[in-house]
Amino acid sequence: MAVITFLSDFGLTDGYVGIVKGVIKGINPDAEIIDITHDIKPWAVQDAAWVLFNASRFFPAGSIHLAVVDPAVGSARRRVAIASRDMIFVGPDSGIFSLITDDTSHAVELSNRRFFREDLSTSFHARDIFGPVAAHLSAGTDLSDLGQQMEISSLNRIRTEPLTESPLCLTGSIVYIDRFGNLITNIPNDRVGNDARLIAGETSLRLQATYASVEVGAPLAFKGSHGFIEIALNQGCAAEGLGIGCGAAVRVEQRS
Amino acid sequence: MAVITFLSDFGLTDGYVGIVKGVIKGINPDAEIIDITHDIKPWAVQDAAWVLFNASRFFPAGSIHLAVVDPAVGSARRRVAIASRDMIFVGPDSGIFSLITDDTSHAVELSNRRFFREDLSTSFHARDIFGPVAAHLSAGTDLSDLGQQMEISSLNRIRTEPLTESPLCLTGSIVYIDRFGNLITNIPNDRVGNDARLIAGETSLRLQATYASVEVGAPLAFKGSHGFIEIALNQGCAAEGLGIGCGAAVRVEQRS
Amino acid sequence: MAVITFLSDFGLTDGYVGIVKGVIKGINPDAEIIDITHDIKPWAVQDAAWVLFNASRFFPAGSIHLAVVDPAVGSARRRVAIASRDMIFVGPDSGIFSLITDDTSHAVELSNRRFFREDLSTSFHARDIFGPVAAHLSAGTDLSDLGQQMEISSLNRIRTEPLTESPLCLTGSIVYIDRFGNLITNIPNDRVGNDARLIAGETSLRLQATYASVEVGAPLAFKGSHGFIEIALNQGCAAEGLGIGCGAAVRVEQRS
Repeated sequence: MAVITFLSDFGLTDGYVGIVKGVIKGINPDAEIIDITHDIKPWAVQDAAWVLFNASRFFPAGSIHLAVVDPAVGSARRRVAIASRDMIFVGPDSGIFSLITDDTSHAVELSNRRFFREDLSTSFHARDIFGPVAAHLSAGTDLSDLGQQMEISSLNRIRTEPLTESPLCLTGSIVYIDRFGNLITNIPNDRVGNDARLIAGETSLRLQATYASVEVGAPLAFKGSHGFIEIALNQGCAAEGLGIGCGAAVRVEQRS
Repeated sequence: MAVITFLSDFGLTDGYVGIVKGVIKGINPDAEIIDITHDIKPWAVQDAAWVLFNASRFFPAGSIHLAVVDPAVGSARRRVAIASRDMIFVGPDSGIFSLITDDTSHAVELSNRRFFREDLSTSFHARDIFGPVAAHLSAGTDLSDLGQQMEISSLNRIRTEPLTESPLCLTGSIVYIDRFGNLITNIPNDRVGNDARLIAGETSLRLQATYASVEVGAPLAFKGSHGFIEIALNQGCAAEGLGIGCGAAVRVEQRS
Repeated sequence: MAVITFLSDFGLTDGYVGIVKGVIKGINPDAEIIDITHDIKPWAVQDAAWVLFNASRFFPAGSIHLAVVDPAVGSARRRVAIASRDMIFVGPDSGIFSLITDDTSHAVELSNRRFFREDLSTSFHARDIFGPVAAHLSAGTDLSDLGQQMEISSLNRIRTEPLTESPLCLTGSIVYIDRFGNLITNIPNDRVGNDARLIAGETSLRLQATYASVEVGAPLAFKGSHGFIEIALNQGCAAEGLGIGCGAAVRVEQRS
């Protein structure tokens, strides 16, 4: 039985997440739903895209990822289901799938109302469209029954800063800040030598093996567990302590 | 196998929600528990009643709704189980069931200690009474075995502002504010014409189709997904932006 | 099928909890995972130890408790699995298991990499080591296959204030403050007479039966549901209202 994961910006306070799960269980009583997060800041598609990319990789083949963050809910926004990496992603075409679409084999625009709730609202598509579609997929409905195939290249994408390279250095940026205040970059671990120096804002750091390599409260850069270089304070909040925010440039001097 | 939903004001920090689930699994290992919310403000029965009403409707027939918010835990407060709309609601008679009792067929006062934990505390009835009762119900125990039948009309009810009507307008109020700052009224969508004008505080709004009908940051009123008129800011927090709180009057001028 | 409980300081925002669950489901699709909490303050081993002790007792025999709070992740910290009270506890030897080890029958240092993820990070051991080990245990792997048996007495323990006794009084301390602001002590209920007087900071209280025994807003001490004396305000936040924090002494005058 496939797992349905669920990511949104609904928060956990108002019961909206529970409602979507209730609708799913009504369609497929055997569905098993695992939350990724519902605490994405309201409408923060960029954060949602990163968390979804990062978390979805660790779920077993066959998983269905329900992901709903959409500043433009109720507009003519397309609703999509995307087959990628042996999984299916379901949600609005808001850019939330930007970071997984490189591996996408095909995508479908959700148009077959047979798989929606009968009463459609203009503002709660997770309950009325995306949840029901995910439930039907988990019960065996075929992707191609959900609507017309669409061009993968036409999917909305968030703007992402590319890595830039010169002979002497590699420059990326902070793409996500987690609850510990760790600054996560878009610089892949394997592009950085073990003796590299990193410069972010006014901070210059030598790469370390792990938190415990520096004193409590001291900053460090290290090869992060998500596959990308991170900047952190040992047992502290780097975002606050170093005054570095999302989007800030990080330069790697690879001379070792 | 029936779903048990769970709503409380316990928060997610202290492990109290996990404890109740542990007790339930000890009684019925097959029970499936879905959280509605645990972030009701401490003792906020009014909010809890709205969230429970709104969320419970979307669960399949047979669901058991465990709902525990009680400012007077430990007092002589009755504990009840209520059959309503093909579901069973279990919790304290604190008013939390106010909004579902119109459809109630019968109610029972929980008095049969055989279905409680052996050690009863005075302050954690979700663990000692309500959770165990919900677990036994999910395992097939009959409602009538739990205690004496009681008068539905004797159930505690929170005070709710009624709608008031004049030939020219309909007046309701804000009954819930969600995490997005959306102001949810008690005015049913179908009582409002598509060209109606709404007045709340110093704000006067024409009904719109959806968020995207107005500019980002602008206020709007629309037919909400929960079945009631909502006032919102497109991608903003109406509660803050408009300075309107729970209980505020909302007047609908239905001249279209 | 055994339940896996999960406690951490990861928060619910970043999807890290979902990732660990994805890894577990990949190893044992039948695993059922119940959250205890993920809102332990970052690296707060003391709080984590109390919540884990308090919650784990209420789960059925056979449960596997995955508990990961570790200020020194990435150091040479041992990773352990502990058999205690018909359950197994899995996590770092950070002191998080301090309060359950009295009942421990045997413990194992996790060293058999066959039960880890292939790619080991230095900073996300819940995903790479502890989650996979818990998944394998839930699928039937024997504790003794996970690594070398170790001395239970060598497990790290947090410092806990002992109770001190004189002929006239018993002194303990506040060990945990919950979301309601209730002050939970380490003084067992059964050590306190029903007419005892308690002194904490500048507050002197007679033991009461329950919240409702005093007026709304008034302070009280009572026999708490977790087995230990608590100090609270009826429908208020005692931590704030009384200005008493974690570690504060509580003296019981048992003259009745």
